[in-house]
Amino acid sequence: MRERHFINRIAEMAKQASHPSLALGIGDDCAVVSGPPAHDLLVTTDMLVEGAHFDCRWHPAHLLGRKALSVNISDIAAMGGRARFALLSVVLPPYLDDAWIADFIAGFTGKLAEEQVVLIGGDTVSGDKLVISVTVLGNIAQGKVIKRAGARPGDGVYVSGPLGLAAAALHFCQRPGGKFDDVAANPWPHLLQALLDPQAQTAMGALLGDLGGVSAMQDISDGVATDLAHICQVSQVAAEIFADRLRPHPELEKYCRFARLDPVDLQLRGGEDYQLLFTMPLEREPALALACAAAGLAEPLRIGRIRAGQGVWLRQNGVAAEITFQGYEHR
Amino acid sequence: MRERHFINRIAEMAKQASHPSLALGIGDDCAVVSGPPAHDLLVTTDMLVEGAHFDCRWHPAHLLGRKALSVNISDIAAMGGRARFALLSVVLPPYLDDAWIADFIAGFTGKLAEEQVVLIGGDTVSGDKLVISVTVLGNIAQGKVIKRAGARPGDGVYVSGPLGLAAAALHFCQRPGGKFDDVAANPWPHLLQALLDPQAQTAMGALLGDLGGVSAMQDISDGVATDLAHICQVSQVAAEIFADRLRPHPELEKYCRFARLDPVDLQLRGGEDYQLLFTMPLEREPALALACAAAGLAEPLRIGRIRAGQGVWLRQNGVAAEITFQGYEHR
Repeated sequence: MRERHFINRIAEMAKQASHPSLALGIGDDCAVVSGPPAHDLLVTTDMLVEGAHFDCRWHPAHLLGRKALSVNISDIAAMGGRARFALLSVVLPPYLDDAWIADFIAGFTGKLAEEQVVLIGGDTVSGDKLVISVTVLGNIAQGKVIKRAGARPGDGVYVSGPLGLAAAALHFCQRPGGKFDDVAANPWPHLLQALLDPQAQTAMGALLGDLGGVSAMQDISDGVATDLAHICQVSQVAAEIFADRLRPHPELEKYCRFARLDPVDLQLRGGEDYQLLFTMPLEREPALALACAAAGLAEPLRIGRIRAGQGVWLRQNGVAAEITFQGYEHR
Repeated sequence: MRERHFINRIAEMAKQASHPSLALGIGDDCAVVSGPPAHDLLVTTDMLVEGAHFDCRWHPAHLLGRKALSVNISDIAAMGGRARFALLSVVLPPYLDDAWIADFIAGFTGKLAEEQVVLIGGDTVSGDKLVISVTVLGNIAQGKVIKRAGARPGDGVYVSGPLGLAAAALHFCQRPGGKFDDVAANPWPHLLQALLDPQAQTAMGALLGDLGGVSAMQDISDGVATDLAHICQVSQVAAEIFADRLRPHPELEKYCRFARLDPVDLQLRGGEDYQLLFTMPLEREPALALACAAAGLAEPLRIGRIRAGQGVWLRQNGVAAEITFQGYEHR
């Protein structure tokens, strides 16, 4: 039974890990976790389905294993917390061979180790198509959670890193006549990494949680225009993005020239970047700069501001135009 | 988008619920939970795949929604804890219509209310086949967890209720020439309920956790022979089941006569009963009887004993024969 084999392999690797808060790991009816005192528990889950969220033809198994974990860890970072534990459930289709499975497991467990997250449970079943369901538990000091609701007029709008790279990579992977070999040969390393092996902004999320004063935050999964619209909606404010503040990554600019795409559009609407999007009073900027310098992290980029009203607006050449909330949708 | 609709419906229902430990429910990157002081967190996850775990032709949507939650709550009960929060992720195939989805949601949310469990997150994606992934969080007073390892020679072996009903119902549903109408007409109500709408032993699990002195416990998902073998293996002991102690449910006996099946075999090997299987020193029986009477719960049945050695043995007509660990396997 391949499922049994998969579970055993994962459990074997997980057993080597330990955590002071983990009273009981894989192997019983439940895992048992003791939370640190004066901390809240963060819980998030994401399901990735072949065809809807990824394509095994060009997504290497190893990187897919990493990504399945990263996208969940990103949600924990987006609250200002730290990921601690993960559960992995997989529907395994017959066309994925043992080498594929071994690569996937290696990627997943490698990312667990990098992020210091411990696998505490899961499930594996045979089926027609690959489905990956991951749940991640994290923790955060009580009262320190950064929600989406909380942006206030006058706050700056910040992103933790470059935008639109994953969307450009998806365009590259899906273009008519594209071949897997092109992806493997990796002509656009930064773009492809953003799509195939995104990094959760773990350190920045924890830094912002510790720093305090961040008024709203989420991670960018549907594109900054859509995700900022979520923040504005629940905070009952409007946001303006300044086009001249966007700093396209050099590889994105190059790809956009090559593929005749608009880099501003990709940065605004491209999903799956898993950068952090947050709002904060401008007077907190010096403290943020100091904290980033101390932590050796690149300072987040201010790309806009919050104002009274509704919607997300793009200010370009002195004119503000409302940009739709319709972001990047999974195919 | 049907997925969006599904999520919104679930979130809408979940919003009406609240819990003193729930700081933030559905709608942000993560749910935020404050654990009660001096309690540990229990975490379990199960994935149900159409074709492997259920068949939509004879599993009513409403009952499937209930079962998807119950099987996870059963894992919490099997540690002696209480279920508190749930996450529900679903792959929705195109052939399930809105009425089916509404019934599934009604079943799931009805069971949430019955069990006083609050939905705090999830995910929905379109796909080819129905996949249901549920994660449940529970809690238990620190140090009170009942593990599988812990059975000691001399302990009695107990089950919380009748065995083999779900396996008999599966035999009925899958028999050649069987029709869905037979299931809908419900000629075997207790058997079919055990398979289609199993009850997690929530009250008994919590009672046993509070009572103390239970040396090992798990829920019966693979059949008592296989599940008792798990307990024996991790506890490094052997178990004997006394055939004359098994008390087949009257409807099981009737079905076995009708279908020419062996009721002892069904009780030992039949899976998915979700009764609790536990071991306990015999001298705790009076305390258990009192606690059950006070709680209005039927007293668990002692069906065997733990002894030194290895394996699970069936004692019948004065002879003990080792029974294989091979239980009921999902098709």
